[in-house]
Amino acid sequence: MAPKVRTGTTEARIWRVERGSAEPVQDRVATEEPLEIRLLWEGGERTVAVTMRTPGHDEELAAGFLYAEGVVDQPGRILAVRHRPDEEGPDPNIVEVHLGGGPDPELATLERHFFSSSACGVCGKAGLAALQIRATEALPAGPEIAPELIATLPAKLREAQGLFDATGGLHAAALFDSAGGLLDLREDVGRHNALDKLLGRAFLDGRLPLHGHLVLVSGRTSYEILQKSLVAGVPVVCAVSAPSSLAVDLAERFGITLIGFLRGDRFNIYAGAERITGVAPRRAIRQGLLPTIANHR
Amino acid sequence: MAPKVRTGTTEARIWRVERGSAEPVQDRVATEEPLEIRLLWEGGERTVAVTMRTPGHDEELAAGFLYAEGVVDQPGRILAVRHRPDEEGPDPNIVEVHLGGGPDPELATLERHFFSSSACGVCGKAGLAALQIRATEALPAGPEIAPELIATLPAKLREAQGLFDATGGLHAAALFDSAGGLLDLREDVGRHNALDKLLGRAFLDGRLPLHGHLVLVSGRTSYEILQKSLVAGVPVVCAVSAPSSLAVDLAERFGITLIGFLRGDRFNIYAGAERITGVAPRRAIRQGLLPTIANHR
Repeated sequence: MAPKVRTGTTEARIWRVERGSAEPVQDRVATEEPLEIRLLWEGGERTVAVTMRTPGHDEELAAGFLYAEGVVDQPGRILAVRHRPDEEGPDPNIVEVHLGGGPDPELATLERHFFSSSACGVCGKAGLAALQIRATEALPAGPEIAPELIATLPAKLREAQGLFDATGGLHAAALFDSAGGLLDLREDVGRHNALDKLLGRAFLDGRLPLHGHLVLVSGRTSYEILQKSLVAGVPVVCAVSAPSSLAVDLAERFGITLIGFLRGDRFNIYAGAERITGVAPRRAIRQGLLPTIANHR
Repeated sequence: MAPKVRTGTTEARIWRVERGSAEPVQDRVATEEPLEIRLLWEGGERTVAVTMRTPGHDEELAAGFLYAEGVVDQPGRILAVRHRPDEEGPDPNIVEVHLGGGPDPELATLERHFFSSSACGVCGKAGLAALQIRATEALPAGPEIAPELIATLPAKLREAQGLFDATGGLHAAALFDSAGGLLDLREDVGRHNALDKLLGRAFLDGRLPLHGHLVLVSGRTSYEILQKSLVAGVPVVCAVSAPSSLAVDLAERFGITLIGFLRGDRFNIYAGAERITGVAPRRAIRQGLLPTIANHR
């Protein structure tokens, strides 16, 4: 039986107020519902996450999350991903991930920790010492991308993004090839979920690492957006909004090109400028010789 | 010894690209660093969270987080909140919360769970069954707020918000009295952290519940923003961007006035319209009689 149909938006009857006068209208908001991810293997079964997400592509979300957290590293390890069957059909808010034979999944580092703030970027890690990244090597050089190609990406994302336009409440993550062709797009109320879905699809299809690809996210970039991109091997990460200091640190340390404030033909390069055609290598910047921009919003 | 000074922004040398030509500039990005929250009581000690946050107001963040999670319910229970002393002075990324005598802190519901996705809104909860809210009663009626007052809030927030303007990478949460006076403002790379800091300050000052107050957040509203506001007794929650479906559900269920897309003198009321002067009560809306707006961005 197919899962109950869930849509990315929910009807809402609201009041629209303008200059003090109110009018009742029918509107739509982005759907937010909890998803429980359960891991099942020969030796056991365990709930590994409860995440607030927009229904849709739940299997990809589960796979992408487990890959980014280091619980699974090969798609072949996953026998099946599906909504949990119950008497009335599949439960739309519980996804089961069935692992095939092999060693027990690596949950030890996750078990030491017992809870963590939301939006934290390090959920599942056990204290500061666990803030190490799985990747140990910087990404390989290339591809080389023209600034003009970068400038075309936001319009392609918006064109493909149905839900966002309808509610204004969804984040998007899009995957592009090095020629700027849109390969895939996912949306979610949580930006990390949108990226987990996008990279989870590529993982399930055996397309990792994504060397030679670009990712564009609709919002800001944080530690976690860079961590997920790094683990999936994405060399160029672009965002419509600002990066955090840790996002910049991670990009510099692991050779990721990080672009922010990508709007029309303007953008900022925070790290990895050598992949962008015509931009001087970073070592050419000498401290003290730079103009300062205080406000670029 | 005072904690090492941390600022909310970090220097970054970047390339600014416009129409294909690149210029090196000195810029600032929002600081993102991990904060470990450790709970200490007579019977034990435990790391209860690691959150990615912008340094500053860490004590408020820890207190607000623990209050929202139900671990402490009275400011008198907290003997001290401070950065952990080490040989070189206080550790800027570890906050200790010392609890006074009384029963052991209520960690049982949190321990059942072992890890959870970031940005999840339910971190620390043990599966779907734990998605219950601590509050059991709806908020009391009032205050009554004029639409003209609501319209003044974003400008007051922006005026007070130094960091956001400099980096474009910080969320803000502001507390107002029912006359529209700005009482407090906090900023963070995580919107949940900004709200934890804001409400944590009020908690530590013994000012909860915040009946008769308004909160404005710079971004979107999700389940968790409403959950934290509800537990602190905030009757009116306003946001510059969109709410999620669960935010609307929670607001309706617990009698919170939820306002979104607050921009100039325009805004949408998603729940609790009876607190806004001159707006008809919600029961006057009859299904099928409403105009539809497909895109209000």
